[in-house]
Amino acid sequence: MTFSADAFLDIDKTSPPKVRGFRFAGIAAGIKSNGKPDLGLILADEDVAAAGVYTKNRVRAAPVEIAQKRTRKGRLRAVLVNSGNANACTGEPGRKAALASTAAVAKRIGVSAELVAPASTGVIGALLPAEKILDAMPRLLDAVDSSRAADFARAIMTTDQWPKVATRTLKIGKETATVLGVAKGAGMIHPDMATTLAFVVTDAGCSPALLAKLLKEATDATFNAISVDGDTSTNDTILLLASGKAGTVKAGSKDAKALREALEDVLGALGRSIIADGEGAEHVVTFEVSGARSDADARKAAKTIATSPLVKTALHGVDANWGRILAAAGRSGAVFDPDVAAISIGDVAIVTKGMPIGKTAEAAAAKIMAGPDYTIRVSLGRGPGKARYLTCDMGKSYIAVNANYRS
Amino acid sequence: MTFSADAFLDIDKTSPPKVRGFRFAGIAAGIKSNGKPDLGLILADEDVAAAGVYTKNRVRAAPVEIAQKRTRKGRLRAVLVNSGNANACTGEPGRKAALASTAAVAKRIGVSAELVAPASTGVIGALLPAEKILDAMPRLLDAVDSSRAADFARAIMTTDQWPKVATRTLKIGKETATVLGVAKGAGMIHPDMATTLAFVVTDAGCSPALLAKLLKEATDATFNAISVDGDTSTNDTILLLASGKAGTVKAGSKDAKALREALEDVLGALGRSIIADGEGAEHVVTFEVSGARSDADARKAAKTIATSPLVKTALHGVDANWGRILAAAGRSGAVFDPDVAAISIGDVAIVTKGMPIGKTAEAAAAKIMAGPDYTIRVSLGRGPGKARYLTCDMGKSYIAVNANYRS
Repeated sequence: MTFSADAFLDIDKTSPPKVRGFRFAGIAAGIKSNGKPDLGLILADEDVAAAGVYTKNRVRAAPVEIAQKRTRKGRLRAVLVNSGNANACTGEPGRKAALASTAAVAKRIGVSAELVAPASTGVIGALLPAEKILDAMPRLLDAVDSSRAADFARAIMTTDQWPKVATRTLKIGKETATVLGVAKGAGMIHPDMATTLAFVVTDAGCSPALLAKLLKEATDATFNAISVDGDTSTNDTILLLASGKAGTVKAGSKDAKALREALEDVLGALGRSIIADGEGAEHVVTFEVSGARSDADARKAAKTIATSPLVKTALHGVDANWGRILAAAGRSGAVFDPDVAAISIGDVAIVTKGMPIGKTAEAAAAKIMAGPDYTIRVSLGRGPGKARYLTCDMGKSYIAVNANYRS
Repeated sequence: MTFSADAFLDIDKTSPPKVRGFRFAGIAAGIKSNGKPDLGLILADEDVAAAGVYTKNRVRAAPVEIAQKRTRKGRLRAVLVNSGNANACTGEPGRKAALASTAAVAKRIGVSAELVAPASTGVIGALLPAEKILDAMPRLLDAVDSSRAADFARAIMTTDQWPKVATRTLKIGKETATVLGVAKGAGMIHPDMATTLAFVVTDAGCSPALLAKLLKEATDATFNAISVDGDTSTNDTILLLASGKAGTVKAGSKDAKALREALEDVLGALGRSIIADGEGAEHVVTFEVSGARSDADARKAAKTIATSPLVKTALHGVDANWGRILAAAGRSGAVFDPDVAAISIGDVAIVTKGMPIGKTAEAAAAKIMAGPDYTIRVSLGRGPGKARYLTCDMGKSYIAVNANYRS
């Protein structure tokens, strides 16, 4: 997994490339009280291969249940997404609202409602105003165009500061295929912080089974190392649609590997953009844990460190407070001997054999921590296990945004 | 477990009662750079029964190792506590500093160093300045007096806003015995937030084995439902010393039950004072989870809810954001069906059968949430399991204190 700056495609400055077989729309339907865009549509020219990954939370929003059931068949025609309302904890009325909304899309485009997947994000526990979505349906379908992925990206934002789009190309034989991903984050990207939605379309083609496999692998390597994971919101959803207009990829082939890498790059870039957009975040920090007894142990340690409020506030304070890092690892459940642990920030070693190297090293580390983007490596000295976790610092504006989110 | 306001004994307003067989001191030894008290001593008139509970973190400070080893024998004569330096992650030099400090106490009072338990709290990874403690030893022992528990309480503070003392009396036959507890919190009382130290003395007497049993039971019912738990700092320690001057308590007796209840009241009051002192905390909130499949499941849910930054910021914002509470329960690992879950704040029901009752209920709940102290009940509708967890809201000053703690 590599995150490079050029993986971000700032759609305020440039337009995302078209992807053959897909059109997009994003409009304001009045779901958000502030009049901002809140309804988006991805429309495929014909039925396409589809795969999804979903929240593991026991509390699942109505659209998640419906999207998962419909995508299980491996084919979709459209994805209808609203922001401003999560349609979660809304019971049978919520389920009916999601069904009515997707049925309206299906009717307009002349397909079975089973081919339209819903997704929602926003406030929990308020009934989705389906009538507003039905009223907006003619405008939504009028707006659909192959060049409007940017509109779609804006329509799915909640407290995001910027829309999140990333693309990659790959070769399938002589054809150039494109992978285009759109995501929304919002809130801190703590595990329990906010809904993550991501939608990826490609004109590469493959079987639904292979698509599901590639999506799962790419998600585990990217989004599951920042946020979605076992700890999830009620609405987290990633959907992948493949039109096949640029050729077909077979399982086990070089092309399949290229598609997986492109997916991983796109999801990695989206994940990084989400982290960078953490409320009040000034630093994107990658924790790399090595030397654990197992990858699972390394993951426990990396996740506990990266989600510790004490560690995250120290990152905000540009304080090389390695004691908090070591203490977080110590309570993570990972088995290790603190007396052989080592920590470095960027290329500056600050802890060796469980003890501080000194004030000079910590001052040098603090200079690195003043930057927007750096890596902290924690070596447990116990075995071959390793893991990576991306996080951001926790600043005062995080409190402000989250204390007043519903106000 | 009951927490009543009168369990707080504000030592700025009144003096804690004497406990026969114990003397205390608290002085400034120069460990803290700001000149505040930082060295405390509890001195028993003779060897007394002792028991302890300690951090479960893999990273354990030198004084924790030494205190646990020495207390295992069931007898202590003195406890030496410093603030301003945790003596954690300091390796062999740290161990030597703790041994030298306790040896100096032992020499002065003419006992074996094995009878002196150390405890430390403060910055991790800086070597304990043993020479400052040795220099201060004559002053510390000169200051020792049965009326100076308040000085001791001040000397163990770190970022605490107030010293924490609580007392209870009980009858042993015709004698009145006293249980006096002193604690320090600091930081949020999130599990991973800061060191908790507590020291309890009583003139009741009992065997070390019974003392250890009573302490463990009382801790499980109190401190382990706020903070110490499986998630602990490098230094967490609770020590209990019993002089027996007010009579002896036998296992299984009514007196043993009374002593356990007194211990639980004292530790409960100290725990509540620690929570109320959470940085930036304006509300002390008790989460009561019922209807879980088991007590263990209830505890998972209660702990995940009570430690969720999203929930804690909503408490700060006086926002009856039950969606965050339900979502936290949903990712806790507790097994339940969200469609039968119920939530009430104080005596106001806001969620029934997994759905909101309405805006009027939420407005009524918000009025309760404006208060300093209230209870949120979450019913999972699945079985007899129940658990309680105490927490506070997360405010902006939490960030300020923790981002700049070492500066």
